[in-house]
Amino acid sequence: MNLSTQRDNEKPKVRIRDDFWDGYMELVRDTVIPYQWDALNDRIADAAPSYAIQNFRIAAGLAEGEFGGMVFQDSDVAKWLEAVGYSLAGHPDPELEKTADGVIELIAAAQRSDGYLNTYFTLKEPGKEWTNLQEAHELYCAGHMMEAAVAYYEGTGKRRLLEVMCKFADYIDSVFGPEPGKLHGYDGHQEIELALVKLYRVTAEERYLRLSRFFIDARGEKPSFFVEEWERRGRFSHWTQKVTALPDLAYFQAHEPVREQSVAVGHAVRAVYMYAAMADLARLTGDQSLLEACRRLWRNTTARQMYITGGIGSTHHGEAFSFDYDLPNDTVYAETCASIGLMFFASRMLQLEPKSEYADVLERALYNNVIGSMSQDGKHYFYVNPLEVWPEASEKNPGRHHVKAVRQKWFGCSCCPPNVARLLCSLNDYIYTASPETNTVYAHLFIGSESSFELAGGSVKMKQVSGLPWEGKVRFEVTPAASGSEFTLALRIPDWCAGKAGLTVNGSPAPYDIEQGYALIKRQWSEGDVVVWELELQAQLIAARPEIRANAGKAAIQRGPLVYCLEQADNGSPLAAVSIVREAELGTRYEAGLLGGAVIVEGEGQIEDEAVWEADDAPYLPLSSTRQTRSVHLTAVPYYLWGNRGQGEMTVWIRTAAGKKE
Amino acid sequence: MNLSTQRDNEKPKVRIRDDFWDGYMELVRDTVIPYQWDALNDRIADAAPSYAIQNFRIAAGLAEGEFGGMVFQDSDVAKWLEAVGYSLAGHPDPELEKTADGVIELIAAAQRSDGYLNTYFTLKEPGKEWTNLQEAHELYCAGHMMEAAVAYYEGTGKRRLLEVMCKFADYIDSVFGPEPGKLHGYDGHQEIELALVKLYRVTAEERYLRLSRFFIDARGEKPSFFVEEWERRGRFSHWTQKVTALPDLAYFQAHEPVREQSVAVGHAVRAVYMYAAMADLARLTGDQSLLEACRRLWRNTTARQMYITGGIGSTHHGEAFSFDYDLPNDTVYAETCASIGLMFFASRMLQLEPKSEYADVLERALYNNVIGSMSQDGKHYFYVNPLEVWPEASEKNPGRHHVKAVRQKWFGCSCCPPNVARLLCSLNDYIYTASPETNTVYAHLFIGSESSFELAGGSVKMKQVSGLPWEGKVRFEVTPAASGSEFTLALRIPDWCAGKAGLTVNGSPAPYDIEQGYALIKRQWSEGDVVVWELELQAQLIAARPEIRANAGKAAIQRGPLVYCLEQADNGSPLAAVSIVREAELGTRYEAGLLGGAVIVEGEGQIEDEAVWEADDAPYLPLSSTRQTRSVHLTAVPYYLWGNRGQGEMTVWIRTAAGKKE
Repeated sequence: MNLSTQRDNEKPKVRIRDDFWDGYMELVRDTVIPYQWDALNDRIADAAPSYAIQNFRIAAGLAEGEFGGMVFQDSDVAKWLEAVGYSLAGHPDPELEKTADGVIELIAAAQRSDGYLNTYFTLKEPGKEWTNLQEAHELYCAGHMMEAAVAYYEGTGKRRLLEVMCKFADYIDSVFGPEPGKLHGYDGHQEIELALVKLYRVTAEERYLRLSRFFIDARGEKPSFFVEEWERRGRFSHWTQKVTALPDLAYFQAHEPVREQSVAVGHAVRAVYMYAAMADLARLTGDQSLLEACRRLWRNTTARQMYITGGIGSTHHGEAFSFDYDLPNDTVYAETCASIGLMFFASRMLQLEPKSEYADVLERALYNNVIGSMSQDGKHYFYVNPLEVWPEASEKNPGRHHVKAVRQKWFGCSCCPPNVARLLCSLNDYIYTASPETNTVYAHLFIGSESSFELAGGSVKMKQVSGLPWEGKVRFEVTPAASGSEFTLALRIPDWCAGKAGLTVNGSPAPYDIEQGYALIKRQWSEGDVVVWELELQAQLIAARPEIRANAGKAAIQRGPLVYCLEQADNGSPLAAVSIVREAELGTRYEAGLLGGAVIVEGEGQIEDEAVWEADDAPYLPLSSTRQTRSVHLTAVPYYLWGNRGQGEMTVWIRTAAGKKE
Repeated sequence: MNLSTQRDNEKPKVRIRDDFWDGYMELVRDTVIPYQWDALNDRIADAAPSYAIQNFRIAAGLAEGEFGGMVFQDSDVAKWLEAVGYSLAGHPDPELEKTADGVIELIAAAQRSDGYLNTYFTLKEPGKEWTNLQEAHELYCAGHMMEAAVAYYEGTGKRRLLEVMCKFADYIDSVFGPEPGKLHGYDGHQEIELALVKLYRVTAEERYLRLSRFFIDARGEKPSFFVEEWERRGRFSHWTQKVTALPDLAYFQAHEPVREQSVAVGHAVRAVYMYAAMADLARLTGDQSLLEACRRLWRNTTARQMYITGGIGSTHHGEAFSFDYDLPNDTVYAETCASIGLMFFASRMLQLEPKSEYADVLERALYNNVIGSMSQDGKHYFYVNPLEVWPEASEKNPGRHHVKAVRQKWFGCSCCPPNVARLLCSLNDYIYTASPETNTVYAHLFIGSESSFELAGGSVKMKQVSGLPWEGKVRFEVTPAASGSEFTLALRIPDWCAGKAGLTVNGSPAPYDIEQGYALIKRQWSEGDVVVWELELQAQLIAARPEIRANAGKAAIQRGPLVYCLEQADNGSPLAAVSIVREAELGTRYEAGLLGGAVIVEGEGQIEDEAVWEADDAPYLPLSSTRQTRSVHLTAVPYYLWGNRGQGEMTVWIRTAAGKKE
């Protein structure tokens, strides 16, 4: 084994210091991580037990009992450890580190001598390892624990979990691969592919990279591994405990070789985790056909199957993509984990090729679907992130049961909350990329932070101060190690500012070249150089393509990266009776008292006059007798804050109306 | 047993002779009944076998084999016989009658000596009779066969099947009832309740009426029969063949005593079949609390849970009602059978109390949801009748799989097609009611026909000639048996003519009194008296209440009883991009070439200009850059004709826009 830290230098060192984001970091540190620790240990009253830690205790021989929870329960421990690793990197906490070290020893003790590690199979189905890759999440759990190992190693310098997982990776490498006698299979839930790339990054062990590529290459080849495996296990399903039909290969993105895929299909989280790994591999191996597939899948996902909030997955059946332009707002899925996975994919595409569209989507998902999933107390979550909610329908129409009108308590077994935790704890990794080849620092996100970069011309420190999402002024203070060293600072021109971005360098307006959506500032930098990037932050109405039928005749409100919504609390019910005047000015106002403070958007609306309907209980009447509208004042709040003021209707897309001239 | 025909006199004798409806009668006679006969005998190539006739042959000892099909397969034979009975009444056919007589002998031979009759239990679970009323449809099948017996007796005068079913009814009466030692249960699918009332009507056997009332009275009482039965059968389910959870009593409308029910819940067909029986019993027993419950349930169903097409049932989960004002157009259920059941309920309410609102709904369901379910060839059917269709979504979004974009072949086991057949064959029964007490003939539907009525003042013949649904002129020719005899002719003032209904009697304009939505013409009638009822038939835009969120900002087109829709074939795709100008005149034009001839409606519309979107693949752009509309000509066709010109988008509700002034 060849553990190395040298490749670590590729990653900029970034620490967030930001008025908007510091609160989230603290929430994760002070609330989410401790709360999840309690959950993993079955200490949350009135929540279903997790069993996750107990499973490891039993597998380690420290306790007696039976395996509990889902077949992928181990991954909850992994995600927690990963979040802890990120957290400790920026915010040392000896107490937390001690707890985590203890968990890692437990994991090490649960590992088999040959390296195998999975409490479900160790405790419940020993001997059945690798017989149901389609359903049993073995490599998925391994992948999450590898991610945890890398994060913990990078956060603390401690190699214990990394060694455990390298041993497991070596074992997996002995079982899977293209060679005769090995299993030519892959997991039903992609995850290990991107994890092995991370393991390769910190260990430089090329076998891990090759193994990741093997999993990607094998997927979708004919004859289908999943079909053959299904036959081998007597067509029996773990989930239904019955003989089942032929697996739906598209659900697992195993319907065709990944290089031939052009359309996002199947389970959305599986899809984007896979795309992220494909982008990693395209970058690290220079595989052009993989790059082309990534570009096609990116385009399809983001131009045809993405909600304006950065949500993906239009149906709860299989938590899946449906098809191009099918983006229903009310029966939506838009799982939190899927948007997080979309961020993974976007950030890898940025590493591949810095184009602002990747960062635009990354930012869109982050500021809307992802942070909107968490309540302000950090203890309640949306798994499904709807763009239109009618609470009574969520309760009484079974086709909408999956759409919750209020955030749910974080139950023992759950994917989204720990995913939010690990994402927020590692948000610093998404702000910049640095390219030693082109001697350029790309600023993708405008989040206050202190950073250092290793470039061809030496190291550079940079401080970013950002007013986002409330104000559009972003300030960069550059401190090169050596005065006069040259490099390019590339500032993203966000899609939402319509090119209205002003630049000053040391107080003087500066023209700039634009490349792939970035303003390039190439100069010799001196200590104290200040770049100010002024982005127009104007609330505006956004329309959707006509092919997106659900949004016909409607508009959404967006201001900067934030999508807004109407809530019943501000605008009454039924919300659908309200329309927004297309030509009217949208006003903005900072409301310090609103859920931690937020800019609200105000507009002129119209509402159908209800008088005629009150006189009659008829459901339908001639339009001519009912068409009376009156003006109303509309108040929109950021989407990420919806559902924090009790239960009520919400809508992102608002009917539009002509104004007074009508 | 006391078979009697004297009560038959209550029913007016009506024979349809109508340009619009004759075609449907012929279709049912010449195509649907023979086609169904082939289906019942497993002679339809590439359709799943029905087994229905074969089951009776096996049970009768004439063939060997096993029971096939659903537990309620017998009811398909019953519905066919019922339709045949109605058909023979108006259109003798010795060949068909011979075939039906043969089936009846088969049924008689399959009857147990104690009267019990059900091929599923006789062949497959003998000894298990009456042990799973919740699921096994025994009384449901019995009810349908009773309806068949009554129809066949009334259509042919032959009592064979009537005697068979009276024997079964007597047996059921010995098993069920309030007395100690009897089963205090009721069926999971209401049907026998209304069938027993029919049996009572032709036999005057009050035990049948009492038994019907017992089933209605027992339903929903606590402790719940279904819960106790579920415990007795070890909580085992016929359908899943597994132990299942507590039955959802609301699904069966058994959650509370029927007299306490105010909101339509659960499986829509079950609900309206029950409401129909409740209305029958309220009329025949003078039960005021039952009448009040009928009125409440009518109001809730039709004012809060009914589509503009007369469809009911907002969700395919349980084919059920959801809740007030939840009427999604795209994930709709609106099962054909449920609208037919709504017509049953409406016609019984009309017998109880002649109010035009009952006939308005009856007509709405008939002209839209019901006849729209059948293709023009009589061999393809919609079970689900959507108000908005996007064929690709029906195929690729699992939440819409139940919504078919084209009518489906009539498969062996199916409820809706035979229900349409028996409804259309008995449509003559829905046109009039005659009240000997008030000496009044009510004309509820305007369908050309020849009729005779028995009134206090003697018998009256009446010929109706109607231009509906294309023209609003309706002509009545009255021929009393004795010249000068007095009675009242009450003509319905349809909700769609907004009171614009002109009356002439023998060519002279005549004023009229209005009572409960009927124009009353009380006079002494002479042979050849002619009443002309001129109803304004104007195409108009209809709005929905603001509480019906799915239709916010939209309008439907209605002309007379017909609801219209836009189809892709006439208006392109995506249909959602089109809006209709609110103030513009709607034109009408008779198109002889359109699917047998129909009046189409034309209007002025707007469409979003797609140029800006074609230049870019962005899913979302600022509204200000995209908001260009151009005028389009819109063509709407009657809803009942949709989906007959290939597969395409369809919508009933159309976005509205302000006109040129904008």
